[in-house]
Amino acid sequence: MFEKYFSERIKNTPSSFIREILKVTQNPEIISFAGGLPNPISFPQEELKISMNRIAQKFGAKIYQYSTTMGLESLREYIVQRYKIIQKMENITLDNVIITTGSQQALDLIGKVFINKNDKVLVEKPSYLGLLQSFCLYGADFIQTKLNDDGLDINELKKVLDEQKPKLAYLIPNFQNPTGLTYSAQNRISVFNQIKDKDLILIQDDPYGELRFDNNERLPYIGLNESEKNIYLGSFSKIITPGMRLGYIIANKEIIKMLETAKQASDLHSNIFAQYLISDYLYNNDLDKHIEKIKKLYKSQAKAMVEAMQKEFPSNVTFTIPKGGMFSWASLPDGVSSVDLFNKAIEKNVAFVPGDPFYVGINNVNTLRLNYTNADDKTIKEGIRRLAESIREII
Amino acid sequence: MFEKYFSERIKNTPSSFIREILKVTQNPEIISFAGGLPNPISFPQEELKISMNRIAQKFGAKIYQYSTTMGLESLREYIVQRYKIIQKMENITLDNVIITTGSQQALDLIGKVFINKNDKVLVEKPSYLGLLQSFCLYGADFIQTKLNDDGLDINELKKVLDEQKPKLAYLIPNFQNPTGLTYSAQNRISVFNQIKDKDLILIQDDPYGELRFDNNERLPYIGLNESEKNIYLGSFSKIITPGMRLGYIIANKEIIKMLETAKQASDLHSNIFAQYLISDYLYNNDLDKHIEKIKKLYKSQAKAMVEAMQKEFPSNVTFTIPKGGMFSWASLPDGVSSVDLFNKAIEKNVAFVPGDPFYVGINNVNTLRLNYTNADDKTIKEGIRRLAESIREII
Repeated sequence: MFEKYFSERIKNTPSSFIREILKVTQNPEIISFAGGLPNPISFPQEELKISMNRIAQKFGAKIYQYSTTMGLESLREYIVQRYKIIQKMENITLDNVIITTGSQQALDLIGKVFINKNDKVLVEKPSYLGLLQSFCLYGADFIQTKLNDDGLDINELKKVLDEQKPKLAYLIPNFQNPTGLTYSAQNRISVFNQIKDKDLILIQDDPYGELRFDNNERLPYIGLNESEKNIYLGSFSKIITPGMRLGYIIANKEIIKMLETAKQASDLHSNIFAQYLISDYLYNNDLDKHIEKIKKLYKSQAKAMVEAMQKEFPSNVTFTIPKGGMFSWASLPDGVSSVDLFNKAIEKNVAFVPGDPFYVGINNVNTLRLNYTNADDKTIKEGIRRLAESIREII
Repeated sequence: MFEKYFSERIKNTPSSFIREILKVTQNPEIISFAGGLPNPISFPQEELKISMNRIAQKFGAKIYQYSTTMGLESLREYIVQRYKIIQKMENITLDNVIITTGSQQALDLIGKVFINKNDKVLVEKPSYLGLLQSFCLYGADFIQTKLNDDGLDINELKKVLDEQKPKLAYLIPNFQNPTGLTYSAQNRISVFNQIKDKDLILIQDDPYGELRFDNNERLPYIGLNESEKNIYLGSFSKIITPGMRLGYIIANKEIIKMLETAKQASDLHSNIFAQYLISDYLYNNDLDKHIEKIKKLYKSQAKAMVEAMQKEFPSNVTFTIPKGGMFSWASLPDGVSSVDLFNKAIEKNVAFVPGDPFYVGINNVNTLRLNYTNADDKTIKEGIRRLAESIREII
């Protein structure tokens, strides 16, 4: 009835495939690897309860009042200090940080500020579906570029840069969603060598970077401290709480100023109570110690899934071995559709996300995403057993 | 340096004039009528503290986890029940309500879902600047239609509808921002008679409707229960807390479904802790009793400002007499610029918002917005005295 009123952009935007899947997986008998939810262990509930009572006492009406679009200064200051030390970012100040209503809003704001209809955006193949949905609304033309085990395919990147001249690139260098893959140190350097002289804004989204299973050194961002055209996204969703919807963007202050205008028109500012709460938590607790707990659990869950896949899956099914983050990514033999597998698997009460929504313009792909952060070892084993059975029935 | 990368839409969007003004008014010696902040009396701090501890106890991890895009069911159910009774909305169900990150996000989502570049949008003259900024990003062509003391000018409305055929209309029928004006019962009927057969989506934004100073009957929305093309916006910002950023949209469920897709791409969902908190507050307290307290204060503040203006202002300066809400709107003699007055007033340590940002494409208007909800009677009197002095010096 309202078809004629709706905008072209919304008519061209796919509604979320995952949402439909999650409806199916409500059934409690289903073992679901479909979600992308952090394990509740990552919410420091007792500490947050102490913090909320403390900020109510300490700041009174301020935690309920309108506030600034840029975000709470103490929270932005914490981010500046942490990124200077841990991410080795030189020279960043308060003016380089804006708080967003989760990283999803960061994507929306970047879309608003940078994308004209038909602007070309380089993304990984496969890429984060929330980005595809968000930038689609601004009329982006996506160029998906092959992702190898060690990062972007440099030959394909070079070709895409030369022939298509994208204006933006969106990459998830650490424990990528959906594949779980991480760019190697060498690949990061190679990528930067290819893009550094191009007219290209590089967005690096990093919700999972803190969740490294092995305590080896953190890999530097692509072009770290070498490019003013770099935009970094971060989030508290996977290390403290996603329900509070708090993320942030770090970028050149001229870019931040434009994002501020876009944010003002989008929601005025992010929940200020949540900003006081997370800020209080961060200044009064040891975040790294908390993250250790999450990493330990996820590492054991990932191990359980990988071992079960090694044991149960036919040898012509491959999968990534995650070194951090929340996902593994499996590939069925060529020509086998993961949507067909999904329908079969649901009959056996196990669910996952078929690869389709992570690609642009192709369907019935042979890949699928598996989340391991919300089940215990026994459940993971049983789920993978059922999934392997489903695979054997369709290949 | 980034000019060539920025989108056309953001380059065409004015950054907020009010933001610049608020910077000037940081000086504690300035009496500011410039803000639009609710008085802290409207935040039920003690009750919210009880609610936050209760929901932490009762719902545990759920208040920190990812949640649904549509919003918390108990909160949407409360809205349904309240609107059925108080606003006399028939036949609305959960499917007609989506929670937004403040009403500002509601505007952004509606822009995303309905506006193609150069679509015509009818707005009041003057209109809410947050709407102008938000829809500007989607390329709306605004048609400003004269606002009289009793509502929209019907002759001008008729002409605009016939000649320009707007796709959307955005109106604030109760205690409008910036003018404080309210549409009469008769005007509401006349407006609906004009638009009902047109291909027009009518948005009625109502953040101030609960703040009626006199306990006379609530006026019905335009076309209430008579049009599927009506969209209603509501907010908890002016009656509980703006810092939690919670608003909502009530509309036909086909429209809500599209808004849900747009919201998913914009911020996934609104802060779920805040939704549990406000829901718990609403089910365990008497909202109407709380609103009475706010109304009583604002009524006396409005009275103080009106009396001071009657006493101090030259007779060729007119102003609205608010019957609710947070603002009055003054008009200087023709040809006198309120921006010039602003510069003079700042020297005398009193501030307000010049009318310019509430209009499209005109500058140096003779009108100004005055907020009375954040000062006591004595301060209001002194501020108006200073303002009157400034006026006399420039007219």
